[in-house]
Parts: sequence; structure tokens; C-alpha cells
Amino acid sequence: MKKIAVMDDFLTSALKQCIGDAAARLGFFVDYFSCAEEVVPVVDQYEIFFGHDALPVLQAGQNLRWFACSFAGIEPYLSDGVWANPNCLFTNSAGAYGVTISEHVLMVLLMLLRRMPECQKWMANRTWRSAEQIRSVYGLRVTIVGMGDVGTQTARRLKAMGAAVRGVRRNVRRGADPAFDAVYAVGELDRLLPDTDALILCVPATGETAGLLSRPRIELLPDDAYVVNVGRGSALDQEALIDALRGHRLAGAALDVMSPEPLPLDHPLWRTPNVLLTPHCSGDMTLGYTKERVVDMFLENLARYAAGEPLLHAPSRRRGY
Amino acid sequence: MKKIAVMDDFLTSALKQCIGDAAARLGFFVDYFSCAEEVVPVVDQYEIFFGHDALPVLQAGQNLRWFACSFAGIEPYLSDGVWANPNCLFTNSAGAYGVTISEHVLMVLLMLLRRMPECQKWMANRTWRSAEQIRSVYGLRVTIVGMGDVGTQTARRLKAMGAAVRGVRRNVRRGADPAFDAVYAVGELDRLLPDTDALILCVPATGETAGLLSRPRIELLPDDAYVVNVGRGSALDQEALIDALRGHRLAGAALDVMSPEPLPLDHPLWRTPNVLLTPHCSGDMTLGYTKERVVDMFLENLARYAAGEPLLHAPSRRRGY
Repeated sequence: MKKIAVMDDFLTSALKQCIGDAAARLGFFVDYFSCAEEVVPVVDQYEIFFGHDALPVLQAGQNLRWFACSFAGIEPYLSDGVWANPNCLFTNSAGAYGVTISEHVLMVLLMLLRRMPECQKWMANRTWRSAEQIRSVYGLRVTIVGMGDVGTQTARRLKAMGAAVRGVRRNVRRGADPAFDAVYAVGELDRLLPDTDALILCVPATGETAGLLSRPRIELLPDDAYVVNVGRGSALDQEALIDALRGHRLAGAALDVMSPEPLPLDHPLWRTPNVLLTPHCSGDMTLGYTKERVVDMFLENLARYAAGEPLLHAPSRRRGY
Repeated sequence: MKKIAVMDDFLTSALKQCIGDAAARLGFFVDYFSCAEEVVPVVDQYEIFFGHDALPVLQAGQNLRWFACSFAGIEPYLSDGVWANPNCLFTNSAGAYGVTISEHVLMVLLMLLRRMPECQKWMANRTWRSAEQIRSVYGLRVTIVGMGDVGTQTARRLKAMGAAVRGVRRNVRRGADPAFDAVYAVGELDRLLPDTDALILCVPATGETAGLLSRPRIELLPDDAYVVNVGRGSALDQEALIDALRGHRLAGAALDVMSPEPLPLDHPLWRTPNVLLTPHCSGDMTLGYTKERVVDMFLENLARYAAGEPLLHAPSRRRGY
């Protein structure tokens, strides 16, 4: 019988049952592991691996025929060198994280606009005081860089709250969700920044996105603008961002992704004013909906795999997403 | 010339210009005051007062013909005893606060669901750690009590994020915004509470809403439910809420309104777990949009007043809203 190795660190028992039942119907047997390292000694028994942090499995899995990544980000797997089987199929779970990450973006953006961290500090000291000046998502001019699932779900929510939403992407000829008022190419970003109130970065880590929000581009943002990054830390010049925040040439930033992660104890970001840091948790799989979507996407692909059909959610290792 | 006394503590110079110009066109002259007490010695010169915290003006204003309240809450003005002129017209600014208060509700609800206060504490100690289990607005079963501007704007935003939204109001025969999946009378609340994930209170302070979320009703909520109050502190049994939070029979609460306000330094709410307190700031007039709406509503009514037409936004002193 064909066998699947599944990492169960993010799975509920109900979801494990689901996977086991669906696999059995398709002629597969499932074994569960708590991490990729556990799979390595027995990897040759499995033709499919469904999990994350998979480098050791890929490097050892000469006979592995499909790696179904439960995460959306795939930057560890782009180099040919990590694949013991160069013909191994590869899918990811981009599309499962848009709901939770967009809710995170809304939360941190509202916290910045409404100056909630200041209010929390005062209330922690039992001081009944509110911020001098708050701002609204209603009427806010938002620029979203990256129009995948995360960017699109974020745009829909912000649009429903009355924001003006512009999208920026690599390929402007692809169709866009109606939540975007207009779509621009990355090359046009410089023109958009001076009238952007909130810049939201939700791009994957690729050669093209590295340093996308550069020092000169940060300078183009208004002094009262906000930056939110939920993609990858590499998308912005972190030193330039810190300088801008310290110099009050930006009103604030919310970073869920940084370089490096975890942030070292002596990193200057910890002491930067008006920055709201979260530990790369915006897409946490503790959210029930996200887990279910990741499993749904895997099982949909498992049926296709069993039927010899092309797999969905297959990223390009060349493009990086 | 007929004269208007305007409180300018919330007005920008642009908005003052607006009011002055519109008033002049309608044959009125405007004087500005920083508080109601300043108006009292000269109150007989004015036929209209536009402002808030207006008790001294009303009590002295025998000739005052219209009090335009820049706030939405009118509980200080319900008793006949406060009106020196019993025939004084009375309007308020309900309708100007829905956008900002609904954004506050979204922010605090997301902070509770995503356990942001815990995450902020860890990050303040430079500890890279995220919460065990977070929840989503997507699919959340929300019950909103009070379907005025605040309740409706909140319902629209939550619906757009994928929540299931039920509305509760006094008069179920009034039309409801399509963002509400269903509308119930207050008497049906007990039936709704056991399958409510988030209960949002946005009712004015009236005889009917006092103690609306009583101890027995708090007990009907699931242990993992959240309570958000942005109406008036009197709408809930605060002691019962504190008991439920301490006993972990509720997952959390976000209170922007409390009894009394400001909260005394030794009040037990300050030490209650899983409560997110804000200093009655959800409707702060520091938000540009809110100020503009309040002024728009006043000027629309001023034109009607000058033309001898009935005024809009005239609350019932008997009902209390």
C-alpha cells in the first residue's frame, strides 16, 4: 500500500481522522510524525510528505514523489540542491492564510491609527486618558503590495470599511479582485507612495521582493504614514525603517516579520518608537479555519494525485511563489 | 441679528469657518465658547446652543429655543427639571459616531480573539512567543444589542469579514440593515446567548437598558464567549461580569464604558483578568470624519430651523434616544 507521512503538530484529532479516511478511500495509508527529523530514518517508505520545515525530508527523500507544504512560504525550497529527487512534485498552502493574516492586518492597522498602544500604557497605570488625535480606516488611502490571497482578503476587508485601496503586483495583466480600486505595477510604486496613508506589504521572499521598500522609497511616504509588513522581513530595509521611525518621518509600523527571526535580544527594533512587533504569528495555524483549509487543499490534491491529474497550488520554484 | 453660541473645543478652524459662513447666509451670527459655563452669563443673547455638557446652559437658558447636542448620548437631558425653557427644541448627533465606534469594536474584538494583549506583554519582555490558540471573526457568531448607527456600522463590518450577525432591538418591526442575518426582540435575548461567541452592546442609557446584561444572562453565555460594551456602562451588571471573568466563565471582555467613569483607582475592574479597558474613547471627536459629520448634521438642521421646518435627529426625551 502507498504510504503518506503527515506532520501532525498542527492537526486536531478530527482533522487526522479526516485525512486517514480520505487517504484510505484513495488507497493510501497514513503515518503521523511530530517533526520532519522523525521522518528522515524511514523516508524511503513514503511517497508523499505533508508538513512543513521539510528540508531534512527533501534532502533524504530520493524516492519522495510529492511534498505538500502546509505553509504558504516556500523560500527554503527554491534551490535545486535541497531536492534529493529533482522530479518531486511540490505544492504549498497559499490560499489558506488570507483570512487570518488579513484579520491581523486589520487589528494592527486599527491599533496604530487609534494609538491603542499608548492608551494601553496609560490604562495599565490606571490613568484615564485617551490619545490626542486618532485616525480612521474610513477614507484611508491604502496601498497593498502583493495581491495574492493575503493581499486580496485584506483589500476586501479594508474596502468594506471605507478605505480607498490600490493594489501593486508584478503582473498587472492578471485579473484583480473588485476590492482593489486600481492596480499598478511594482515599477509605479514610487508614484503611489507620496499619497499613501498606509502601505501594506504582503509579498513572498523572492529575489524581486528583497529590499522592495528601500530607503529612498521610505522617504517618499508622508510623515504621517503607516507601514504594515506581514509578508517577509526581507521586503523592507529594516535599518532605514528604524531611522524613519526614530526621526518621526513615519507615524508608525506594525511588523509581524523581521530579519532575523526571532529578533535578537539586543536588536534596535525592540527600542524603536511607534513600532508594533508581533512574533510572526499573523498566519498562526492555531486558527481552526486555517487548519481546515490547509487539510482541504491537501485532500483535494490527494484525489488529483491518485487520479493522475495535475496538482493545484503548485508554486513556481523559479518565481518563488 | 439672531445669534448662535457654539462650543469650539472639538472644532478645527476650517469647520468654524464652515459654520460661520453657513450661519451668515441664513441670517445668524456665531460666537464661540470653550465650555458651557462660559455661555451662562450671556445665555440670553443666544437662541441656539450647539455643543455638549450643556446642563448649565439649559438650566439658565429661559429664552433658548434650540439645543443642538454634538454628542449622541442624551441621558443628562431627559428630566424636565433641567430645561429652563420647556419648549426648547432638542437634537443630538446620533449617526456621527457609528464609523469610529465600529472601528473601535473591530479593533478590540480582534485583540481579544487573537489574544493580542498577551502577545504584547511577551514582546515587551523581548520574548518571541505567540498565543496557543487564537480565533477568527470569520464564522464568529455575533449578537449585537442595539441596532442604531453604531450597531449597524459594526454589523456591516463584521458581516464583510465573514461573521454571522444577529441584531437585537426594542422594536423588531423597524427595518434593519441587510448586514443583520436576523433581528430579535430584547425579550428573545436569553435564547440567543447560549450560542453567541461575541456579544456586542451598543445601547443608550435608558430605563430599559439598565442592567440589560444581568448576572443570569452572563451565565447563559458560553465560557469561551466575549463581551464588548461601547454603549453605556449601566447596560451590564459589572460585578457579575467581573465574577465571570475571574471564574473563567467568559473568555474576555472589552469595555469602553464603565460605571463610574473615570474608574476609581481602587476599582476591581483594573485587576480583572482578560479585560481590555479603554477610557470611553471609542467615539472620540478627535477623528476628523466624526467632527465633519457632527457639523454637517448641525448645518443641515440650521437650514431647516431657519426655514421653519421640523428638525432631523430629534431624540425622544421619553424613550431616551
